[in-house]
Amino acid sequence: MIGRLNHVAIATADIEASAALYKNTLASEDQVSAPKQLPEHGVTTVFIDTGNSKIELLEPLGDNSPIAAFLERNPAGGVHHLCFEVEDLESAVNKLTAEGYRVLGKPKIGAHGLPVVFLHPKDFGGVLMELEQVS
Amino acid sequence: MIGRLNHVAIATADIEASAALYKNTLASEDQVSAPKQLPEHGVTTVFIDTGNSKIELLEPLGDNSPIAAFLERNPAGGVHHLCFEVEDLESAVNKLTAEGYRVLGKPKIGAHGLPVVFLHPKDFGGVLMELEQVS
Repeated sequence: MIGRLNHVAIATADIEASAALYKNTLASEDQVSAPKQLPEHGVTTVFIDTGNSKIELLEPLGDNSPIAAFLERNPAGGVHHLCFEVEDLESAVNKLTAEGYRVLGKPKIGAHGLPVVFLHPKDFGGVLMELEQVS
Repeated sequence: MIGRLNHVAIATADIEASAALYKNTLASEDQVSAPKQLPEHGVTTVFIDTGNSKIELLEPLGDNSPIAAFLERNPAGGVHHLCFEVEDLESAVNKLTAEGYRVLGKPKIGAHGLPVVFLHPKDFGGVLMELEQVS
């Protein structure tokens, strides 16, 4: 089922400061993307390219951001979810559901323009997982 | 400074059950390593190969395991740290220290037999980061 670790998403209350930490200290400017507002997802994103994978910084955007509650519980920020690529999202969802695992809603188009779905952290070792169709 | 995302470490109170979740459902048997006890690090590890990176499952081993407190706060488990490769660990530590970032102790030999150091999560967006010398 899961293939490549597409990205690790890190929630932050201040994406400008978080991006600066990577640009100036942890990584270099050419590894860090410009911020992009995704109002339909309720987040602003910045990607950091690690060569083999990516960090996705997420800042809440607008009301009802899906990461607002996480930042209330973790004001300093933290790892919000892990995104893995799957070849066939529909069959992955069917397999998980048939085995009794909780899938959160129906697949929808994610931040990369590809179908994604989230899995319930209580069924997956306390980790919020996103599955993304690879193409 | 940081290069490849070497692994995402996930703490678990039951590594056998966690490994089975990956072997039987999320991934496949050939992606999942056998458990390995590392008494000098206070953990038992299982690695899941995602092709481009790895998940490292961690279960406490013995007294004073470095992940015991994390599991007390997060009994269901969760993402414990992110490990990034660096080409020159000593210069990375010197740069971070000079800029006022907190590095946790001195570099020591990590689970892969290479020098590693951990960074204080309060200085890095709420994320515990491990830096590993690549060779």
